[in-house]
Amino acid sequence: MEQFNPTAKTTLKRLPKRGVFDRAVVNQILDEAFICHVGFVVDGQPFVIPTGYGRIENKLYLHGSAASRMLRSMAGGVEICVTVTLLDGLVLARTAFHHSFNYRSVMIFGRAVLVEDADEKMAALKAFTEQVIPGRWDDVREPNSQEMKATSVLVLPLEEVSAKVRTGPPLDDEEDMDWPVWAGVIPLQLRALLPLDAPDLRVKAELPAYASNYSRT
Amino acid sequence: MEQFNPTAKTTLKRLPKRGVFDRAVVNQILDEAFICHVGFVVDGQPFVIPTGYGRIENKLYLHGSAASRMLRSMAGGVEICVTVTLLDGLVLARTAFHHSFNYRSVMIFGRAVLVEDADEKMAALKAFTEQVIPGRWDDVREPNSQEMKATSVLVLPLEEVSAKVRTGPPLDDEEDMDWPVWAGVIPLQLRALLPLDAPDLRVKAELPAYASNYSRT
Repeated sequence: MEQFNPTAKTTLKRLPKRGVFDRAVVNQILDEAFICHVGFVVDGQPFVIPTGYGRIENKLYLHGSAASRMLRSMAGGVEICVTVTLLDGLVLARTAFHHSFNYRSVMIFGRAVLVEDADEKMAALKAFTEQVIPGRWDDVREPNSQEMKATSVLVLPLEEVSAKVRTGPPLDDEEDMDWPVWAGVIPLQLRALLPLDAPDLRVKAELPAYASNYSRT
Repeated sequence: MEQFNPTAKTTLKRLPKRGVFDRAVVNQILDEAFICHVGFVVDGQPFVIPTGYGRIENKLYLHGSAASRMLRSMAGGVEICVTVTLLDGLVLARTAFHHSFNYRSVMIFGRAVLVEDADEKMAALKAFTEQVIPGRWDDVREPNSQEMKATSVLVLPLEEVSAKVRTGPPLDDEEDMDWPVWAGVIPLQLRALLPLDAPDLRVKAELPAYASNYSRT
């Protein structure tokens, strides 16, 4: 299985057994999630901003208004950190100390670069939509030249990357195993509820299957 | 309603109508979520790490192993940014450009300080558990002195804070309203599935109501 090369930044100092460098595992996490938290630095001050993303092969794309602080700050080629987190469960131990989360997260380090090529930019815009709702892109009006101009797209190579995964039951110490309380895991799932029609929906359009039956897994 | 004072960092440059400075709104978001993304800088490199937190009044508490990079880096009183994001829905517009998320997020700026006082530290540890599973703390073994020593707790004042909220349907332009596709919102919800007993559960303990009937809302 293809592996990322661990670096000083991506090597876990603690609980190294939770570290994962398989590209397949990383891609699976990136493809299941659709919100990342982007960290960048302006004058020594860190900012962490939630935003959508799209993946195409070994590249992660970010986008935003051409006028946004995040985009303008990052397009200069500064070091950024993109973190994607999926929450899979609550781990209830016998001891407060051993409570935990089951999760899968990915951290990506690197420098983002502005995408100038029009075809690559359009492919990235498609990836943003398809990342969230596969099938949607073919149904909607594509971005026009004005919208393309108003949107900046950045690309970040998936090179310096690691995942971190916790699964399974609580891990209490032997001397606590008789503590009189239930212990286990409450699994969590991001669930779609019934779609809500736009109140100004004018056309007679059927609810597409990707909306009526939306699921991430 | 009590308001945060906007600062250069917390004033939204774009879409300022999405900015919220009400403390009550901020607290509601912080209390519904339980994972934050903490941004900090080491030698100019930003790191963004997902972690749990607890809120007590106007203070946010973070914790981790006394040996962790995050804790050691932050305890020095450097500027950090803590972002909490709740995803409420997918906004499907007629145009690719107007696709969006419904979300509620909070950004907190400030310097975290190590909690040295034993009582405050214990209160924070309780807050971490109660943030996720209200009622759990009273059932489990409290941290002993060794566990207290192994855990570092940081406190960040809720002073330089803003929220950002998007709700409601897609907002397409008039000329796109007849595009022949369904438009609307797919609401999302973090749902708890059936709890899983720890495989090494020895005691006869009933599943507590907070686990059998877990809900964030």
